[in-house]
Amino acid sequence: MHIVQPGMEIDVLKENSKVANENYRLLKEHKIRSVDFMGSIGAGKTALIIKLAEKLRAKGVRVCAIAGDVTGVDDYSRFEKSGLKAFNCNTGHECHLDANLVRKSLREIDLDQYDVVLIENVGNLVCPADFPLGTDYRVVVISTTEGDDMVRKHHDIFLHSDIAILNKMDICDAVGVDPEVIADDYRKLTGGLKEIYKCSVKKDEGLDEIIKALNL
Amino acid sequence: MHIVQPGMEIDVLKENSKVANENYRLLKEHKIRSVDFMGSIGAGKTALIIKLAEKLRAKGVRVCAIAGDVTGVDDYSRFEKSGLKAFNCNTGHECHLDANLVRKSLREIDLDQYDVVLIENVGNLVCPADFPLGTDYRVVVISTTEGDDMVRKHHDIFLHSDIAILNKMDICDAVGVDPEVIADDYRKLTGGLKEIYKCSVKKDEGLDEIIKALNL
Repeated sequence: MHIVQPGMEIDVLKENSKVANENYRLLKEHKIRSVDFMGSIGAGKTALIIKLAEKLRAKGVRVCAIAGDVTGVDDYSRFEKSGLKAFNCNTGHECHLDANLVRKSLREIDLDQYDVVLIENVGNLVCPADFPLGTDYRVVVISTTEGDDMVRKHHDIFLHSDIAILNKMDICDAVGVDPEVIADDYRKLTGGLKEIYKCSVKKDEGLDEIIKALNL
Repeated sequence: MHIVQPGMEIDVLKENSKVANENYRLLKEHKIRSVDFMGSIGAGKTALIIKLAEKLRAKGVRVCAIAGDVTGVDDYSRFEKSGLKAFNCNTGHECHLDANLVRKSLREIDLDQYDVVLIENVGNLVCPADFPLGTDYRVVVISTTEGDDMVRKHHDIFLHSDIAILNKMDICDAVGVDPEVIADDYRKLTGGLKEIYKCSVKKDEGLDEIIKALNL
């Protein structure tokens, strides 16, 4: 994040935590389960959310999504086109969602109509790490196209998230990336306690395990 | 960027511009041409710089690189392994390079030994836009794996850069992306005045045109 002046950063993060806690309480009052999907551009967050929502709807779970983006309605439109009720949340200039922006979106939603809210954060593997939104889970999504050094380069977001997902397993070979290197780095970073979830949204592989891990 | 308090943002950007101008003058005193490569994770910035540097060295141009990353030495090591003299520049926590970090790196470099400095910014398509480093050119690199909506979603960085590059043209089909949609969005954004440079670093296609566009 952009450190502007000593002390300032702490104030911003403290204020964010306060609002994140309020969001969490509000969601719990309405018995809603929620997930924050973080990850870089092209990791496949939108497609993953669409697919998870399809599977959940098939089980009778009522789902909606919040589409976080700097500008535009691309992800929002993709959600809506797939049949997933969505709420657009533009940051304007900011490179990440924050608890306050999510609070505004939650006010738009008739919360009694949903069991699950899936939030797509802005495409960015650095900044969102610092700003919890008040969800049950924080997820980081990376893809094989990003190279095998993502865990080594971006400790913060992997340590700030509850589960990590490696998407686009179907094009490992086309992009020349060995997923085991990534899996191994993640294992080491988490003291051997956690495994990265491998999936291919395109081929619908590995998604049921993710739904289970997120208690959806 | 993270707006912390009204007025603060302007101060930070003003201070950055001042140092960027100093960097520019320093580079010019040493007759160095310089480029700032911005782009998301996995766009292929490192591989592009390595390939451009190879081509330049073959013509007798003396090149070095600055590897900007939040943490670690992955890109730095890749540069050095390819035979490109590199200087590592970790931001620690920040999601972009700034003029001050680059000034520190320039102090490490014997500037009389080089004709060209290629700077790889942190993998991020949002934040680097606000922070010019003092280079001759600012370049944004995207890849076909990022989807066809990058120009629509990230106006800022495309408007803040001199040229835009669309990499990984060789896997358009594998990822199901039509490069003409991206090319068209970029044309529209730049009032029909500019074309995106299409290339495949892997197949060594389209790189000579980029070298020409950057006056390298």
